[in-house]
Amino acid sequence: MEEECGVVGVALPGAEPQSSSPAFQIYYALYALQHRGQESTGLTVHNGYSAHSIKGMGLVPEVYVREDLKNLTGNVGIGHVRYSTSGDSDIENCQPLVVNFKGGTVAIAHNGNLVNAKELRDELESEGRIFITNSDTEVIAHLLVKQLLKHSILDSIRSVMHRLVGSYSLTILIDNQLIAVRDPLAIKPLCIGEVEGGYLVASESVAIDTLNGRLLRDVYPGEILFFRDGEMESYQLDTDKRAAHCVFEYIYFARPDSIIDGKLVYNVREKIGRVLAAEHPANSDTVSPVPDSGITSAIGYSKEAGIEYREGLMKNRYIGRTFILPGQEMRDIAVRLKMNAISDNIDGKRLILIDDSIVRGTTSKRIVSMIRNAGAREVHARVGSPPIIAPCYLGIDMATREQLVASQNTIEGIKEMIGADSLGYLSIDGLVDAIGIDKNELCLGCLTGRYPVEICGEECCAQLQSRLSDY
Amino acid sequence: MEEECGVVGVALPGAEPQSSSPAFQIYYALYALQHRGQESTGLTVHNGYSAHSIKGMGLVPEVYVREDLKNLTGNVGIGHVRYSTSGDSDIENCQPLVVNFKGGTVAIAHNGNLVNAKELRDELESEGRIFITNSDTEVIAHLLVKQLLKHSILDSIRSVMHRLVGSYSLTILIDNQLIAVRDPLAIKPLCIGEVEGGYLVASESVAIDTLNGRLLRDVYPGEILFFRDGEMESYQLDTDKRAAHCVFEYIYFARPDSIIDGKLVYNVREKIGRVLAAEHPANSDTVSPVPDSGITSAIGYSKEAGIEYREGLMKNRYIGRTFILPGQEMRDIAVRLKMNAISDNIDGKRLILIDDSIVRGTTSKRIVSMIRNAGAREVHARVGSPPIIAPCYLGIDMATREQLVASQNTIEGIKEMIGADSLGYLSIDGLVDAIGIDKNELCLGCLTGRYPVEICGEECCAQLQSRLSDY
Amino acid sequence: MEEECGVVGVALPGAEPQSSSPAFQIYYALYALQHRGQESTGLTVHNGYSAHSIKGMGLVPEVYVREDLKNLTGNVGIGHVRYSTSGDSDIENCQPLVVNFKGGTVAIAHNGNLVNAKELRDELESEGRIFITNSDTEVIAHLLVKQLLKHSILDSIRSVMHRLVGSYSLTILIDNQLIAVRDPLAIKPLCIGEVEGGYLVASESVAIDTLNGRLLRDVYPGEILFFRDGEMESYQLDTDKRAAHCVFEYIYFARPDSIIDGKLVYNVREKIGRVLAAEHPANSDTVSPVPDSGITSAIGYSKEAGIEYREGLMKNRYIGRTFILPGQEMRDIAVRLKMNAISDNIDGKRLILIDDSIVRGTTSKRIVSMIRNAGAREVHARVGSPPIIAPCYLGIDMATREQLVASQNTIEGIKEMIGADSLGYLSIDGLVDAIGIDKNELCLGCLTGRYPVEICGEECCAQLQSRLSDY
Amino acid sequence: MEEECGVVGVALPGAEPQSSSPAFQIYYALYALQHRGQESTGLTVHNGYSAHSIKGMGLVPEVYVREDLKNLTGNVGIGHVRYSTSGDSDIENCQPLVVNFKGGTVAIAHNGNLVNAKELRDELESEGRIFITNSDTEVIAHLLVKQLLKHSILDSIRSVMHRLVGSYSLTILIDNQLIAVRDPLAIKPLCIGEVEGGYLVASESVAIDTLNGRLLRDVYPGEILFFRDGEMESYQLDTDKRAAHCVFEYIYFARPDSIIDGKLVYNVREKIGRVLAAEHPANSDTVSPVPDSGITSAIGYSKEAGIEYREGLMKNRYIGRTFILPGQEMRDIAVRLKMNAISDNIDGKRLILIDDSIVRGTTSKRIVSMIRNAGAREVHARVGSPPIIAPCYLGIDMATREQLVASQNTIEGIKEMIGADSLGYLSIDGLVDAIGIDKNELCLGCLTGRYPVEICGEECCAQLQSRLSDY
Repeated sequence: MEEECGVVGVALPGAEPQSSSPAFQIYYALYALQHRGQESTGLTVHNGYSAHSIKGMGLVPEVYVREDLKNLTGNVGIGHVRYSTSGDSDIENCQPLVVNFKGGTVAIAHNGNLVNAKELRDELESEGRIFITNSDTEVIAHLLVKQLLKHSILDSIRSVMHRLVGSYSLTILIDNQLIAVRDPLAIKPLCIGEVEGGYLVASESVAIDTLNGRLLRDVYPGEILFFRDGEMESYQLDTDKRAAHCVFEYIYFARPDSIIDGKLVYNVREKIGRVLAAEHPANSDTVSPVPDSGITSAIGYSKEAGIEYREGLMKNRYIGRTFILPGQEMRDIAVRLKMNAISDNIDGKRLILIDDSIVRGTTSKRIVSMIRNAGAREVHARVGSPPIIAPCYLGIDMATREQLVASQNTIEGIKEMIGADSLGYLSIDGLVDAIGIDKNELCLGCLTGRYPVEICGEECCAQLQSRLSDY
Repeated sequence: MEEECGVVGVALPGAEPQSSSPAFQIYYALYALQHRGQESTGLTVHNGYSAHSIKGMGLVPEVYVREDLKNLTGNVGIGHVRYSTSGDSDIENCQPLVVNFKGGTVAIAHNGNLVNAKELRDELESEGRIFITNSDTEVIAHLLVKQLLKHSILDSIRSVMHRLVGSYSLTILIDNQLIAVRDPLAIKPLCIGEVEGGYLVASESVAIDTLNGRLLRDVYPGEILFFRDGEMESYQLDTDKRAAHCVFEYIYFARPDSIIDGKLVYNVREKIGRVLAAEHPANSDTVSPVPDSGITSAIGYSKEAGIEYREGLMKNRYIGRTFILPGQEMRDIAVRLKMNAISDNIDGKRLILIDDSIVRGTTSKRIVSMIRNAGAREVHARVGSPPIIAPCYLGIDMATREQLVASQNTIEGIKEMIGADSLGYLSIDGLVDAIGIDKNELCLGCLTGRYPVEICGEECCAQLQSRLSDY
Repeated sequence: MEEECGVVGVALPGAEPQSSSPAFQIYYALYALQHRGQESTGLTVHNGYSAHSIKGMGLVPEVYVREDLKNLTGNVGIGHVRYSTSGDSDIENCQPLVVNFKGGTVAIAHNGNLVNAKELRDELESEGRIFITNSDTEVIAHLLVKQLLKHSILDSIRSVMHRLVGSYSLTILIDNQLIAVRDPLAIKPLCIGEVEGGYLVASESVAIDTLNGRLLRDVYPGEILFFRDGEMESYQLDTDKRAAHCVFEYIYFARPDSIIDGKLVYNVREKIGRVLAAEHPANSDTVSPVPDSGITSAIGYSKEAGIEYREGLMKNRYIGRTFILPGQEMRDIAVRLKMNAISDNIDGKRLILIDDSIVRGTTSKRIVSMIRNAGAREVHARVGSPPIIAPCYLGIDMATREQLVASQNTIEGIKEMIGADSLGYLSIDGLVDAIGIDKNELCLGCLTGRYPVEICGEECCAQLQSRLSDY
Repeated sequence: MEEECGVVGVALPGAEPQSSSPAFQIYYALYALQHRGQESTGLTVHNGYSAHSIKGMGLVPEVYVREDLKNLTGNVGIGHVRYSTSGDSDIENCQPLVVNFKGGTVAIAHNGNLVNAKELRDELESEGRIFITNSDTEVIAHLLVKQLLKHSILDSIRSVMHRLVGSYSLTILIDNQLIAVRDPLAIKPLCIGEVEGGYLVASESVAIDTLNGRLLRDVYPGEILFFRDGEMESYQLDTDKRAAHCVFEYIYFARPDSIIDGKLVYNVREKIGRVLAAEHPANSDTVSPVPDSGITSAIGYSKEAGIEYREGLMKNRYIGRTFILPGQEMRDIAVRLKMNAISDNIDGKRLILIDDSIVRGTTSKRIVSMIRNAGAREVHARVGSPPIIAPCYLGIDMATREQLVASQNTIEGIKEMIGADSLGYLSIDGLVDAIGIDKNELCLGCLTGRYPVEICGEECCAQLQSRLSDY
């Protein structure tokens, strides 16, 4: 399960045009958002005359070097971290996407996924337009530039937003004008902070914390923000849609220290643990998390259930993105390289094992087996999310429907498959309760198969209707 | 003085779709054309279903690895080597440029320079089109795709050619259809060879030699070649223009073992030496070249003048593209790292020193000084080209007019500046004679200031007229 | 504070001489020990005829590639991970150190530090011997080879051990004979496991777990182990010394899932928290760790004190070894890049902050300040170790005496300096109690200034005496 | 055929201790000697207190970066370029070899090969000494350090020289004392120059030219040079041996612009061509070299024979050390990538083809075939050296005796094998004549099988005698 991206935008009006601070601020902000994408990163800074970029494959500290950042002067900029799956020419898909057009330069950093990208692309190609990358972002760039020739920036952006279906948290530079946009359903996160007398827009508030800034608020659904002359101007896309915030940001993706749409992720996760304890109690001696993502929920479960919290599994902090396996096939050693059982905390014990979610079930199976080998008498698996029964079309690279274990099996079947003594999933209502946001303002697509936007091939219209009434 | 590019195209109909030969053929061909561009290289192969590329910064052997080439199956492909000046985001300008459009995929490799690129770009931008690279090639791609939506491939290419002003030797893949195009003035070279039962199009015939192929002929001015089903089809752009072959390919750029527009470069250079000997004799003991580019002409001069040829300067074969200088400023050590005087062949001698051309004069000055330090009694500089008095707008990165020493000084002045006892430049007629092509079919722009195409800022129309009558 | 090294040894008698398993086993074992050294790594395998090595700067997954490991056949081998401080020629200090001598080849991997290395080196140099590296290991190699010319392997090793003063956990290959050695004080850890029908010796038991092996026991103080023909033979250096196990392995270095000298590190750390709660209670609302090293102790404190455990600081999991700071000086941003405060868990709260130790105090100061900025009403710092008042000479790169904040200040002074409302250190007896090993069998040098071996410049003899009686 | 090494030494007494000039001078000198070794390079500078090194695998411009050179202050230093054949741990064999010993530091850069290295190594190992590298240089270091404990530097070096059998041109730093040594037979070159008020010792005089210095003279056979306080002191090993300069330096290795033992290499090569023309005339239309090594001799042949010189083969200047071949086997494409026939200069012609030497004959065969394919009517191969019938034990990696085509075949047989119409080798007397040095002062080992030193397995003693009387 992989997040697609993280975005950043910085406007530091007080910065001397020759100052390099915005480039460094973007660098630190991207560092704080590294968990949202580890395959490539880029940043673009505009100095009033022209835009300059640094991009590359790899982690933030691998791509940028001090001298390059120092030379990247200017007082506005945007940045991006990205996860990707493709091969050699990846570098071409690395963002920000910078395009030149009649009026100047547009740079775009995008987190999200357009459901109607293909349709829009076909339409643009029918006009004889060409595509050099295979990202949705180039579609947005084409649409935006078409409008900019005829309309004001604000009208152009509004017009483009009316065409886009899906999730998009965007930071945009139109020449040296920084703009931030969040889709009307506010699916992916985006927030605003005050940093050193300027503004920072970022996918998560941890970026603001890292720069010692102050979180002002989340960007509203359908909001368009302009940053000029040290001021922030807010415009709103007129739409009657309710928000549909992605629940997996709370369950898994976002850093626990981020506040997303007003909710501290840490608190949500602890509450998930508490609700899970209430919904699925078990007679046991100890509560243990699958590290790291299950830790906070396990603490919550432990407190609610009054069962001692002990770390039964230890993670190898140095495990990289890659390691060599003796044969081609995935083997148990891969799991043991990543985590190790602490026998004393497991041996002879009845254990409640807390994981954030189960996608394919294969890793869960290996972990349960490792715990049994360490001597556990019973293993009660508890999952901090409802069963994932449908794919995500809105920005998460989960799996196909066929690969989703909960789409193909009963809970009893999954229990057997992973080898647990019992298995309990959080209920949808329990999840909503833990998040603390109105159910009608959450995207529960992967948990219900009903999406907040029309998606071809899914029972879309009806579901969209149903969503507007009730999940 | 830097060449912009080299291009290659391969159609190997007999190749199994799964064969990797075309990828390897392009690789070897690019290796043979490495002198035309050392900054980046790329190749694109189409397997009947889709196009796949490998691109990278650096020399041919640095960019490609065996496994990647092996996996690049398909029986048509194009390749490119490129010299460039820009910075970090260079990789985006690396060719072939591959674009997706309504009908499929277009990949383009381009050697040359469009004089009206900006104008065309403005026009395309006025239509709301966007540009991701800053290469002329993207302009060509836009124009081509616009036509392809409405017209046949042949008509589309004809139509685009009517819009382009400047030099362009192109290899193009439209899906798996290989096309080669040379501009109506045939400014930059392009030739066709038969290789292993298929066809190879390349900037220079050495690429064909390397693959043990047979040079068929040069691509004609304004010719459009289609390669399908093992056949080559030729179409002609109707134009009344005469050719204007770049003379600097003969003087400096091309490899001596290439045959360009019917003339073996080696022979031209030897003849240049002979003509130079006739035009500018000197009482002297020995004839020496500035290695490597002056060697062949020096041999010719020696034979014609009956003066002994001896190597007075030796080149460091291992000198790379970069070396560290103690201070920031360019120093004598840079010249001495590159070449060294052989005192025995110089000391006490009256020396005729043959160089291919003089651009700024600074290197010549250092070389003459090195030779005097080695004990030369007299240094008679002889230059295998006429004075360069105007910049090139058609594909060579020479220098600005202000930097051209012959644009700012008399020959006497240049002689003083470089410290020679005498200085003789080849005459324009001598050059034409050595090349052996009708003066009216050569581009002499940098030598006369009169160009074969209209160039804004130059006295263009009149000159174009004058060219059509007489240089 | 940096660990020096981790070592591994593998003997897999059943392995075909052409098998590559031992090389892969060492690879995985080193991966599991990566926390003990991240600067360089190496491994050496002997195939019965000759020894072959792979070494390099960087992390385990960066240095080794599959093909190289596959080609490294043989059924015995040793490996090493290393932390180092020196510059360009580091690679020469990378272990295993492989030397050729009259009888064959010796390869050595060493964790520890010799107190009398200089003295031994001087003695060896007086004999005309030369040193190519600046590691203690080369000293050991010289001493060993001198003996091997005259004595059996066992006698040679015994003889060398009588000369070495300090800490040394060694894995050694003498030709294809694997030997493991632990110094008589057993200062640094070393344990033995059974893996796939062979033996694995490693600095920590997690390496054995990773290979799905079974921990047999720790190597005894002064024990010499031979592995041949699938058997393990144990020999003992005759010495009346008691053990002096390093307490900082428990406090900080070792992985929590390792069992060292019979004690599970996780349990020791939890117990440290419990003892700390008893020794230094505080009225407060929440207990929070400095992640990651304070987590387990904080859980223990929380349970003992009955005060809620909440994570107040979140670590950036992607923080690398390096990041760019805007200026040269260390700044607050460095701390914020590494960790971030979770305001909800801090704001308005009286907080007990658990850290594993305080070395210089500068990081503690920044963390306390970060917590106060996040709104903490009170910050009660509790430290899971006694004050560090003296340097370590036995294998840990801590700091000079002058840099140790507890060597220069009272506890009250340190409290003021770091800005805490109260400060409590674990007592030495509390630490001993938590570890559960006889005080006389621990090295408490950095906490008492009295070391288990004579150290020049320290009040050594007396202290050594006092140790032998009582700390 | 590969040269082993090039060495450099710099003493710049006027340099401020903090000056970085010597490091840069060594860098430029190594650049000029790059042809003597392309696999690794290193340099060591002593600042009066300690020695610091930079070493690495690769070419000179790849290994050194400006900042590192700048930081390498000191007014004496040595450097090395090296060709090597071994694998992963190559870096350990990279020179200068720097060792610490009782009295200080010794750094050694070595060009040559010791014939009795194994014997000396065995002797040293018998004393219990250990070897970390597998280079002869470590043997020299051991011997030298043993002496330095008891004797003066000069006596120590003399004593070591009495032990060494073979070729050695050495630059040595004993602490900050620079010493240069050449073996009594002066097999490999070494010369002295004056550079910027200091001294430069280098394998070839081109290094001195590059630094704009003045060649003073060659180092004498058995000479020991000390450089201190801006003075050069010369000492002589008392030996009645005559010199035995390597003839292959003149034939192939050295740069043509170098003066070695008083003879300009360029002149020797031209003279070789002239002698070859006299010894092996042929009716033909043109004389062509195998580039680059045959060029100068071909010019000489052409002049002597009065037959026109034309370049029939063109070398690809960009050919790197590696390129990808489609299959595993060496193929014709490898030759065509490296060089290409110029048909106009070959077609229908009777051609004299000049190569510097023939080792295995396989490349010659491919070249002759390429020339025939280009239309040559006759190919008369002429070789600028006598047949190589025996291996070199004194510093050149040629081939085994079995691989040497002239060791296994008659000249007629070789002619058939390479496919030439006639084949003529330079005679030994012709070679001696061209070099201009007394036959008794040259090493002709590879041409006669009789070596100037005893070599085990060769008919050594008798040959050594015969050498002392007459070849």
